[in-house]
Amino acid sequence: MEWDVFLAPYSQAVDELKIKLRGYRDFYEIALKNSPIEFVTGRVKPVPSILEKARRRGIPLDQLNTQMQDLAGIRVMCQFVDDIMKVVEMIRNRTDLNVVEEKDYIKEKKKSGYRSYHVVVQYPVQTITGEKKILAEIQVRTLAMNFWATIEHSLNYKYKGNIPTDVKVRLLRAAEAAFRLDEEMSQIREEILIAQQHFSQKNADEE
Amino acid sequence: MEWDVFLAPYSQAVDELKIKLRGYRDFYEIALKNSPIEFVTGRVKPVPSILEKARRRGIPLDQLNTQMQDLAGIRVMCQFVDDIMKVVEMIRNRTDLNVVEEKDYIKEKKKSGYRSYHVVVQYPVQTITGEKKILAEIQVRTLAMNFWATIEHSLNYKYKGNIPTDVKVRLLRAAEAAFRLDEEMSQIREEILIAQQHFSQKNADEE
Amino acid sequence: MEWDVFLAPYSQAVDELKIKLRGYRDFYEIALKNSPIEFVTGRVKPVPSILEKARRRGIPLDQLNTQMQDLAGIRVMCQFVDDIMKVVEMIRNRTDLNVVEEKDYIKEKKKSGYRSYHVVVQYPVQTITGEKKILAEIQVRTLAMNFWATIEHSLNYKYKGNIPTDVKVRLLRAAEAAFRLDEEMSQIREEILIAQQHFSQKNADEE
Amino acid sequence: MEWDVFLAPYSQAVDELKIKLRGYRDFYEIALKNSPIEFVTGRVKPVPSILEKARRRGIPLDQLNTQMQDLAGIRVMCQFVDDIMKVVEMIRNRTDLNVVEEKDYIKEKKKSGYRSYHVVVQYPVQTITGEKKILAEIQVRTLAMNFWATIEHSLNYKYKGNIPTDVKVRLLRAAEAAFRLDEEMSQIREEILIAQQHFSQKNADEE
Repeated sequence: MEWDVFLAPYSQAVDELKIKLRGYRDFYEIALKNSPIEFVTGRVKPVPSILEKARRRGIPLDQLNTQMQDLAGIRVMCQFVDDIMKVVEMIRNRTDLNVVEEKDYIKEKKKSGYRSYHVVVQYPVQTITGEKKILAEIQVRTLAMNFWATIEHSLNYKYKGNIPTDVKVRLLRAAEAAFRLDEEMSQIREEILIAQQHFSQKNADEE
Repeated sequence: MEWDVFLAPYSQAVDELKIKLRGYRDFYEIALKNSPIEFVTGRVKPVPSILEKARRRGIPLDQLNTQMQDLAGIRVMCQFVDDIMKVVEMIRNRTDLNVVEEKDYIKEKKKSGYRSYHVVVQYPVQTITGEKKILAEIQVRTLAMNFWATIEHSLNYKYKGNIPTDVKVRLLRAAEAAFRLDEEMSQIREEILIAQQHFSQKNADEE
Repeated sequence: MEWDVFLAPYSQAVDELKIKLRGYRDFYEIALKNSPIEFVTGRVKPVPSILEKARRRGIPLDQLNTQMQDLAGIRVMCQFVDDIMKVVEMIRNRTDLNVVEEKDYIKEKKKSGYRSYHVVVQYPVQTITGEKKILAEIQVRTLAMNFWATIEHSLNYKYKGNIPTDVKVRLLRAAEAAFRLDEEMSQIREEILIAQQHFSQKNADEE
Repeated sequence: MEWDVFLAPYSQAVDELKIKLRGYRDFYEIALKNSPIEFVTGRVKPVPSILEKARRRGIPLDQLNTQMQDLAGIRVMCQFVDDIMKVVEMIRNRTDLNVVEEKDYIKEKKKSGYRSYHVVVQYPVQTITGEKKILAEIQVRTLAMNFWATIEHSLNYKYKGNIPTDVKVRLLRAAEAAFRLDEEMSQIREEILIAQQHFSQKNADEE
């Protein structure tokens, strides 16, 4: 299998989607001085990870394009939990892609403690032989969710998927600490919004 | 006029088109080990230049979006003259934009000596209030054409559009030198293509 | 005051220090497959913030270069609290800069809840008129410390330095949640290190 | 040989030197509105090219660090031939590197037609085990010289070093066309400088 040829459109899709989602941040900052998006990253799944996942899930290599949804992966990080659905809504409204699946691991977090909102999209790439529609997975999460997920990922890598029970317990406690941090932040946010309304009201009264 | 708000979608279009046209280069290099595209640059027209051009051409500021086609500008540089039409053909074939006008300043160069192929496209940008179609100008040229155009541009800037006659004469001679360089390069290229065919033929004969 | 001329060497220092500190991450990842540095950002202080701080602290504008240490600012983010001193140690050992001051806001956090380790360095920049030594501040912190500091910064900006008491209380609780997250992470880390030692020991025994 | 470990400091040097030489451009543009540097590129020599060159020149792999001067390579492109020595002078004046050798292929161009000014420097990189001095080659050339060199390089690659005689003849003619383009540009430049002096004189007279 010529991996660089096969993965080229996925790499192109990652580059384009990064630029497009970062664009939202700029539009928001210019129009409203703040943005639901903090930063955006992206990557093409490395070949060893593709092979490992294909083996684990029994996906034939000639069906990767339809059976493996995260060959092209994008991550959108938000400051507040409430921003996540705003970002998802913007993705749904785009006319340059189709949403084919959504998974809400925030309402129903995974057993490991993992939280994130996943949107799988079908995205058209213009190759030198014409348009090609490919699948990409966009993960939307808070900074705290992302922080935890990064640690879990490197532990999974270190232990090859078999994290010892005591480390798993620790990870769950860290997931709770990350969750509490998000909760505190949400409450600060409400406080701010209420304060802003008072402030605007007061200014309006005084005019 | 709130320039940053007005120009935000143009800036986004420039970022996206740069990534998309650079993508061709990568596709070509992965598939064929060489590419008709050498490099791609882009810019949003600076506000003072917009105002100056609007004044000169009598364009009302509320008609900029339809009357000024190069608010978003992209440049594609090629090694060889023959690569230019290949790039234009690829732009015409894209399904994510519409070509609305083409100007061939290579067949009919400007009196100043300027050579380039211009393609004006209508390109959809996803803003936070929905899709917005904007105009963008893509200039396709060789490295030598670009080199000359850069010098002419900085002279025009220095002399505020009134380049003295003796400098103009020099510029025309430099344009000829750039043209001759492109001619020499084209002939090298044919030489190479012929050489490659001999080479392939010879290998085929020997098998 | 010609700000762009005055700030040019600071901007250059930020660009160079970012590349240099990111370099550590790459060296670590190539040699040891993991790095104490997660990511590095940098910025030159915006002119309005310089003016505001100069006014507040009574710094004459012609003494900015010696009296304001954070015109050039670099941030280094770490996954674990223990990584912070590793990074500080590496900065101390560099031969291309001098450490002139250190402030440990981790052992003694600020009343607001702020935690970070600050290193002020003197760094030589090569300008077009020769070498010029400038001051730069490097802040080293965990992702959780950074997350909290970002929120506090935007609240300070919104409330112009006068955050209301109830929001301050919330911020302190968020700071505690960030602190607990760091604590949980540190314990996971120890767990991992112990696990790794067992693992290495076991392998050594079996050989 | 662990290439990624061996080449890591070279890669770091390339990144730092690119940022440092691009800095000159910005300093010049801020102070004088134009710059002798048009753009800067850099690369670490790819492993196959290292092996091929080591074999051809009989360099043992454990002496690469002292015997192969262009493992880290930087290119500085100028608009005008006269800018080249300005850039070289600036490199000589830096206090963060030592010039160990200079080769002037402009006064004495290579038989192939190649023109460029090469400066070999010794540059200190801070690795995780301390400072390490490495060699880097900085090539300074005009855009036209660079254009020609790019073509020659790809022909050499295609023909594996054995360019056929007829293609060589063509290349020499292209080198001459590039040379003439540089000559025309130099004359335009003088014209501009003279025009500018007249202009300044006239303004001074009128005051």
